[in-house]
Amino acid sequence: MMDEKLWFVEQSNYKAYENPKYETVFTLANGYRGLRGWLEFSNYGFPGNLIAGVFDKADSQTTELVNCPNPLVFNIYTENEKLDIDRCVVLDFARKLNMKEGILYSEIKLKTQKGKIIKIASERFVSRSNVHRWGIRYTITPINYSGKLFIENIIDGSITNNEFEPIKKVKHLDVKKGYDLDTGIAIKVVTKDKGIEIVEGTVVRGIGDILQNRKYGVFGEKVREIYEMRVKEGKDYTIEKYGVTYTSRDTDKDPYYLLEEDIKSYLEKGLEKELNLHRDKWKELWDKIDIKIKGDKKAQTGIRFNLFQLSSSAYEKDDRISIAAKGLHGEGYKGHVFWDTEIYMLPFFIYTNPEVAKTLLMYRYNTIDGARKNARENGYEGAQFPWEAADDGTEVTPKWGVDYDGNPVRIWTGDEEFHISSDIAFGVWEYYRTTKDKDFMMNYGIEIVLDTSKFWSSRVEYNEEFDRYEINMVIGPDEFHEHVNNNVYTNYLAKWNIKKGIELAKWLKKEDTNIYEKLLNKLDISEDDINKWREIESKIYIPKDEKSKLIEQFEGYFKLKDITIKEYDENGMPKWPDMEGCKLGETQLIKQPDVVMLMLVLGDEFDLETKKENYEYYEKRTMHKSSLSPSMYSIMGLTVGDTKNAYRYFMKTVLTDLEDNQGNAGLGLHAASTGGSWQCAVFGFGGLYVDKDECLSLKPWIPEKWEELSFKINWRGAILDIAITQEDIRVNSTDNVKIKVFDKEYFVEPNKDLTIKALAYNN
Amino acid sequence: MMDEKLWFVEQSNYKAYENPKYETVFTLANGYRGLRGWLEFSNYGFPGNLIAGVFDKADSQTTELVNCPNPLVFNIYTENEKLDIDRCVVLDFARKLNMKEGILYSEIKLKTQKGKIIKIASERFVSRSNVHRWGIRYTITPINYSGKLFIENIIDGSITNNEFEPIKKVKHLDVKKGYDLDTGIAIKVVTKDKGIEIVEGTVVRGIGDILQNRKYGVFGEKVREIYEMRVKEGKDYTIEKYGVTYTSRDTDKDPYYLLEEDIKSYLEKGLEKELNLHRDKWKELWDKIDIKIKGDKKAQTGIRFNLFQLSSSAYEKDDRISIAAKGLHGEGYKGHVFWDTEIYMLPFFIYTNPEVAKTLLMYRYNTIDGARKNARENGYEGAQFPWEAADDGTEVTPKWGVDYDGNPVRIWTGDEEFHISSDIAFGVWEYYRTTKDKDFMMNYGIEIVLDTSKFWSSRVEYNEEFDRYEINMVIGPDEFHEHVNNNVYTNYLAKWNIKKGIELAKWLKKEDTNIYEKLLNKLDISEDDINKWREIESKIYIPKDEKSKLIEQFEGYFKLKDITIKEYDENGMPKWPDMEGCKLGETQLIKQPDVVMLMLVLGDEFDLETKKENYEYYEKRTMHKSSLSPSMYSIMGLTVGDTKNAYRYFMKTVLTDLEDNQGNAGLGLHAASTGGSWQCAVFGFGGLYVDKDECLSLKPWIPEKWEELSFKINWRGAILDIAITQEDIRVNSTDNVKIKVFDKEYFVEPNKDLTIKALAYNN
Repeated sequence: MMDEKLWFVEQSNYKAYENPKYETVFTLANGYRGLRGWLEFSNYGFPGNLIAGVFDKADSQTTELVNCPNPLVFNIYTENEKLDIDRCVVLDFARKLNMKEGILYSEIKLKTQKGKIIKIASERFVSRSNVHRWGIRYTITPINYSGKLFIENIIDGSITNNEFEPIKKVKHLDVKKGYDLDTGIAIKVVTKDKGIEIVEGTVVRGIGDILQNRKYGVFGEKVREIYEMRVKEGKDYTIEKYGVTYTSRDTDKDPYYLLEEDIKSYLEKGLEKELNLHRDKWKELWDKIDIKIKGDKKAQTGIRFNLFQLSSSAYEKDDRISIAAKGLHGEGYKGHVFWDTEIYMLPFFIYTNPEVAKTLLMYRYNTIDGARKNARENGYEGAQFPWEAADDGTEVTPKWGVDYDGNPVRIWTGDEEFHISSDIAFGVWEYYRTTKDKDFMMNYGIEIVLDTSKFWSSRVEYNEEFDRYEINMVIGPDEFHEHVNNNVYTNYLAKWNIKKGIELAKWLKKEDTNIYEKLLNKLDISEDDINKWREIESKIYIPKDEKSKLIEQFEGYFKLKDITIKEYDENGMPKWPDMEGCKLGETQLIKQPDVVMLMLVLGDEFDLETKKENYEYYEKRTMHKSSLSPSMYSIMGLTVGDTKNAYRYFMKTVLTDLEDNQGNAGLGLHAASTGGSWQCAVFGFGGLYVDKDECLSLKPWIPEKWEELSFKINWRGAILDIAITQEDIRVNSTDNVKIKVFDKEYFVEPNKDLTIKALAYNN
Repeated sequence: MMDEKLWFVEQSNYKAYENPKYETVFTLANGYRGLRGWLEFSNYGFPGNLIAGVFDKADSQTTELVNCPNPLVFNIYTENEKLDIDRCVVLDFARKLNMKEGILYSEIKLKTQKGKIIKIASERFVSRSNVHRWGIRYTITPINYSGKLFIENIIDGSITNNEFEPIKKVKHLDVKKGYDLDTGIAIKVVTKDKGIEIVEGTVVRGIGDILQNRKYGVFGEKVREIYEMRVKEGKDYTIEKYGVTYTSRDTDKDPYYLLEEDIKSYLEKGLEKELNLHRDKWKELWDKIDIKIKGDKKAQTGIRFNLFQLSSSAYEKDDRISIAAKGLHGEGYKGHVFWDTEIYMLPFFIYTNPEVAKTLLMYRYNTIDGARKNARENGYEGAQFPWEAADDGTEVTPKWGVDYDGNPVRIWTGDEEFHISSDIAFGVWEYYRTTKDKDFMMNYGIEIVLDTSKFWSSRVEYNEEFDRYEINMVIGPDEFHEHVNNNVYTNYLAKWNIKKGIELAKWLKKEDTNIYEKLLNKLDISEDDINKWREIESKIYIPKDEKSKLIEQFEGYFKLKDITIKEYDENGMPKWPDMEGCKLGETQLIKQPDVVMLMLVLGDEFDLETKKENYEYYEKRTMHKSSLSPSMYSIMGLTVGDTKNAYRYFMKTVLTDLEDNQGNAGLGLHAASTGGSWQCAVFGFGGLYVDKDECLSLKPWIPEKWEELSFKINWRGAILDIAITQEDIRVNSTDNVKIKVFDKEYFVEPNKDLTIKALAYNN
């Protein structure tokens, strides 16, 4: 029972202003779509029905993920008084996300203005079994009266994007048609630019003949049916709501036909049947992804929340889509895909669900033509992946934003944050290194690595004076500094990218000359070119401090005003130091790890002392003004033996959305942070890494209060079950695996526990 | 200053659930349209933009007045936080309807969730000078912050009818087009059945260059523009909102052209100019209509409210429309016109503004073809006016309603409440008697009287046994009893109607044989027919008690279970007596005056004893379950010398909407009650009546606490100013007038006060 509680995220107090946050936290998604945890009985909040891949620009500054018609509208009227939580006395309020089963439970008891008390319990799910389906079961109990209720089922096509920023409100959908499914309703909308058709259908069904006198109607952009109910005091009335969604992305025919058919069979089999299939899927999933932290309930629930929502964001059957920075959980960042996916989220999938990881990379492969277009347009060669990506690989970063005072500011990331291309190439490599999926690498992955290599070789600028290649006018991961030259993260990864390109070309030539030649032909790369790459990568400039192991974030960084963090807030997060009249970009303060990030991504390229020295230097200068920041400092801290901050950074990461510690959870999931949470647990506390010899290695450390940390990973097809306690490390595997623990080699035999006792890793 | 207060209706406390009531109370109307006093900053309530004559059926049970696009939407965002009174702390709240000037003032100070305090003052008016125009002046003051505001101006075409009764929600409008007036916005909608086009346009204009970065857009059925404002703490920012409306009822061309032109000139001249013209019109109006009650502030404000809203409901320039039972103040009774207009409201206009009275009667004349159609369809002859009327005189009473338990009940009034036809004929006569407008009577009025006479002569049934004419299966004014035979009100007025028809036919023949013959020809009435009418009217059965002067409400009424009222509630209104197991229709309890009504309408047909006896009998049996009831008992009480209840019934009438004592003020004005209020004051306390010799007569009585009651009336072109105090009666006139005061004749010379002292009328 106690254990069950560790599967729940709970809200026990209703405050209207918290609705947007809980909409994100209680989003139910299945990778195909996300339904924000919108509360049907409140006017306040931002309903979100986000279907992966449905992008549109219309009057927006740039293309964005479309907020589709809201099918959740479900109004209850006692007599003619609308049940509105914000006008009622809230007698009871509880919402619980059961992460184990992927079900959002709620139980609300309200007293209306007219004194009627009504209880509404509900279970909501978005099916992982059939991604087009979702459902809700309502149980309505009139506590202190008998009489008439009306039940109004609406699909609201009037929805717009950016409701939360009214001046930017954009309408992407035209309503084409309302359908009377009798019973049930459906709507067909079409996006303005690309003509993507979306059909949403819902059917409400009363258990027993309780829904009467149905009326159907189309009200402008809303389709509705309304029913009468005669209710008796104290009796429970159950209504099932069935939802089905299709879009023209799913079919060449009219998606309405698919909807009609699917809704029919859904109704025939019933809600409980789908709910069971859905539960089974989550059971399968949890068996792969769960991380157990014994002795720390908050961490346990927290990490599960991150795993739950990250898993909910992926759909392995559609390789035209990826995971957006805000998941399918909100409109923030316009549903765009960033480096967050490859660098923060991908490792989770690589190690737990490689099928999904492959799909995410295939999305990049499938959008590489857009990346090529970007390169051409910017005067480069090869494939330049966009800093922000939507559905076709072209750059969709908005050019303008506003600062805190509301002044317009030019956004330069789309022009200058080049490192995304090597981040993707790295993702390809990391996937391959872990899975050894040769088919993927030969047919798809290598094309990404080679074409990004080609891009970099055209992007670098030769500096004759120093006989070196430079990459100027860039933004590194730390976005406080724009237009910088030779950002070390960018340069190092560009160098790595080209090197990996050369290495893989050689490999492919050996593996399959035919494919090799075809590919070089396709990419218009000659062997001369590859030789030229060798020269370039060897001469790419990496700024370093001459007297120490300190790496200079970019050329001239050390000459900036050296302001360091002196004070921390009650959560242990840095307070802004006195800027001494400087602008941010004139100081050494950084937003998030940059050099440290590099040392995490390419861990085996740097020795421990270098890591330590740089960690210590940069940690004092990092403001953590990105949710991508704390997790990485946690991992690096554990790597270099600075365990004092690791737990705090970990919890900060894990609770990003649950405690809304970035203040913008309402806009969607901090998806990078969910991936960061997993990395913190597995790469940080678990100390898992792949060494230079591609051997899986562990150097774990767990906080004193943790009794046990355990997780599973998929290493080249073998499922390893790893448990770390204060006394030992246990490894179980489905296959023979060689593993290093604190640099010592072990061989794990199938289904035989390897236990390593009395470790020196504890403090 | 004190006196000024008597011109205000005030709301000083904000409670969301009271919004609908205040929307009605604060409606601003000019007869062309009514704009409900919708509060822009709340989600709760029922906006109403009701344009007289715009009727449509669509999916409604019967044709109804269409709720037109809401042009009042005006959202303010502090940063991106919408100013929503229901989410704010309400620091100050005051709304005041200045009835003298026809301006709704409001001053609201709110603290947002984020702690921003903002004050919004506004003045709203609906012009009486140019009925197409309305306007608002907002003054916005950020009290404790500087920063950014957004101002969102929207016209909402998604509005539907019957929002307050969701199962009956009906959409009447299709949005045809949004217009970018740059600056300003407009919308064109069209009604579903009749294709009436409505265009609404609004322009917001900042005083000083305060509105910036305008964005225009159409969002489905909503047209909007949004502006940015940079505001400074403590500074006032003034924004004027200009509104203009036209419909295809106003023009043969595209109404948009009229709007475009009108909005241009409106903007050129400015808001203040229109406001001044509007104020002037109200000044003119009040000079005619005001009733002064000194010594009783509540009565003074109350009576003015009734005069204000009744005057606001009429538009003398459009004789295709009349005044609905709920005015232009709400959707209640579907914007239909009942006998309320002729019997309750018309006297006010006849005596203060005969031009309007004529227009109201011309509406009946213009819809007489519909009345003829009703008669034909029901198997009768002549003109049968509809119990409920919309735009063409055909019967539009819904056939079905619901009882308190929500069970469907057949509504019989449209089938059986025949007295409306003679009520209208009576209105014609009353207008003529007071104005001597011969032109109207000869060309229009008489046609109504003759064709309703013809109707009645076909409607009566001859009873051979008793050699009498009966009218069976009817509903009288008391709607508790349906399907009754020989309702005395119905029979008596039918008799009167035919008699008046005969009399007027004779008169017309003498006045203008040509018109007379043409008319008889047109109506297919022969002189033989008229002779037959004579026989009919003389034999119409009037049920009476044999042993007393008591009139039996209908045949068999006295045999019903005689339950009388025993207890009264805290407002002095009857409580339901023990029904002793009977159904309502099986008892002598009545909803509202019926016999008493008859004795008021045809006052000179009954002697004082008859009135007294019947008043006393029926008063004990009247439940006042209609807002049409108390006023009539007040007048009759004063007539028969029972002054004890008169004031209470008067105040009940006057405060019907202000105190919402019928519990449904939210659905619209109780317009009959506004007319009843005037009648109570003038016919009741003023004791004004026209005697058998058509001499204007006065028998006033005023309550002890009233220092003076004074009012003006128009009697055959002479404006009489009548003041009644505890000591004397003063009459002033613009012309020579003969007048009786307590049955004694006086001659009033122009502009010379006639003062009659030391009266015996006080108790």
